[in-house]
Amino acid sequence: MLSERQGTILNIVKEHSPITGQHIADQLHVTRAALRSDLAILTMLGLIDARPKLGYFFIGDKEKDLLSQKIMDISIESCLSQPVIVGEHTSAYDAVIAMFTEDAGTVFVATDNILAGVVSRKDLLKTAMGNNDLRALPVRMVMTPVSKVIYVQADEKALAAAQRMIEYEIDCLPVVHVLDTDEEDKKDLQIVGRISKTNITRLFVECGLGRRT
Amino acid sequence: MLSERQGTILNIVKEHSPITGQHIADQLHVTRAALRSDLAILTMLGLIDARPKLGYFFIGDKEKDLLSQKIMDISIESCLSQPVIVGEHTSAYDAVIAMFTEDAGTVFVATDNILAGVVSRKDLLKTAMGNNDLRALPVRMVMTPVSKVIYVQADEKALAAAQRMIEYEIDCLPVVHVLDTDEEDKKDLQIVGRISKTNITRLFVECGLGRRT
Repeated sequence: MLSERQGTILNIVKEHSPITGQHIADQLHVTRAALRSDLAILTMLGLIDARPKLGYFFIGDKEKDLLSQKIMDISIESCLSQPVIVGEHTSAYDAVIAMFTEDAGTVFVATDNILAGVVSRKDLLKTAMGNNDLRALPVRMVMTPVSKVIYVQADEKALAAAQRMIEYEIDCLPVVHVLDTDEEDKKDLQIVGRISKTNITRLFVECGLGRRT
Repeated sequence: MLSERQGTILNIVKEHSPITGQHIADQLHVTRAALRSDLAILTMLGLIDARPKLGYFFIGDKEKDLLSQKIMDISIESCLSQPVIVGEHTSAYDAVIAMFTEDAGTVFVATDNILAGVVSRKDLLKTAMGNNDLRALPVRMVMTPVSKVIYVQADEKALAAAQRMIEYEIDCLPVVHVLDTDEEDKKDLQIVGRISKTNITRLFVECGLGRRT
């Protein structure tokens, strides 16, 4: 987005802050007047700033930090979707139906809203390819059991959810509250919602259009 | 991320720019000294700026514009993936195999790298559910034909791809060069790559961690 000369000026300011307009002009072997519009654009973009009697300062890195800080502040709760849930005794066939009816790529399996497992389009396609009778097959036999499910907690940030989806190559995570149980070492995962790459893509669009503050 | 008082100060500066530190203190019924650290933080975050003899200016909106500008500048070419392509005479079964082998959610159908159609995990799951013999079914019968395919051009921005995926509810788009053909009104789409919600999620993580400049 910057012209070559604007890039050069930015690098000069970066190395020599504070530096006067005249000194920048000297380095580029042009007149001060020739630089006026480039300096105005760089200032307007917030990449450099002018202080009276001192000259131009580089402030590009601060901008970068602000971008990442804005993204880091987005909570999962501000962007999650409603979960699509089927019971543990549902057939794989009915799980596919729920998936198409709700147009979700991932369905959660639960009893009383406590997560038992997760089943994805990929799991079901693999099963369907294996010549199984999906009507006779309980979804439990196809799902990833809760002990192996990657999830996020409701008070985490959207960035953590996005990182986890990339790291584990998953399209969708259950958003949960972790509850203590009577048994030691056993936690229940109470389903609060789901967050998918679709939610993250929507956030990216909102940030890009300036609709998230 | 801001304290309640910092938020109040920000709103005062927003409404009354330029305003002196003393006038802000008066409005809050505190001393000028009591505000010093809050004003320093807001200045450091780039939300307000101080000009000698004038006072504090609100510059929060400029920051917001810069955030979106950074995202707007990301090109598709900087983040696309290699396409997964099968021939037009491939069976639906072999398209599924390609999908699993390459771990892609979407496969392009093409001859000589010119797009003929697109087939997704969802299309194939739907077909598999219909008791079809996928080995005997040409992928052409299952794919979305090129006339109905939503795509992006290689010189567009990642933001445009993300918007299109959200608007049309698609997980992955072909990235193409549009070529003129001998026939009038007929364009060929030459496949350059693919961009998916996974690529956008990865961009979101990179922006959030400050790894994109």
